[in-house]
Amino acid sequence: MARVVVDVMLKPEILDPQGQAVQRALPRLGFEGVSDVRQGKRFELEVDGPVDDAALARIHELAESFLANTVIENFTVKVEEEKAEAGE
Amino acid sequence: MARVVVDVMLKPEILDPQGQAVQRALPRLGFEGVSDVRQGKRFELEVDGPVDDAALARIHELAESFLANTVIENFTVKVEEEKAEAGE
Repeated sequence: MARVVVDVMLKPEILDPQGQAVQRALPRLGFEGVSDVRQGKRFELEVDGPVDDAALARIHELAESFLANTVIENFTVKVEEEKAEAGE
Repeated sequence: MARVVVDVMLKPEILDPQGQAVQRALPRLGFEGVSDVRQGKRFELEVDGPVDDAALARIHELAESFLANTVIENFTVKVEEEKAEAGE
């Protein structure tokens, strides 16, 4: 069982009103020095069996077909063996 | 200028209907072997100046206060120097 992470972000040339709203709110909330914020989606898939090239190719196809709208979004597929958690 | 990524995911004990909907749809769409899907948010912050410990501490505070609802969500803060893009 391995975890595969698919990150989906709007393409740089696409306006991101959610991210802009966050970015504009930050100075008001006392946080200076953040010049841009983009907001996207993160999918964590628990995959049965080994994540070999064939499995990765299928996940890439899955992400391209269903998780991302490739007209306006980019996506990345990453294998994350270890479950590293921070924050609280 | 550095990019800092804040990933916000629902805590494991919190039900994730969005992720479940994706997971249940996959076999129907021809993708077997994915036993669980969790969906969360990814924020990419462009930070002015060096990302030292003080800056990271402030971003951690920012994420904890505004980007995540720490009652139901975990978050991670990662510095991402290189802009690695894949997918399309």
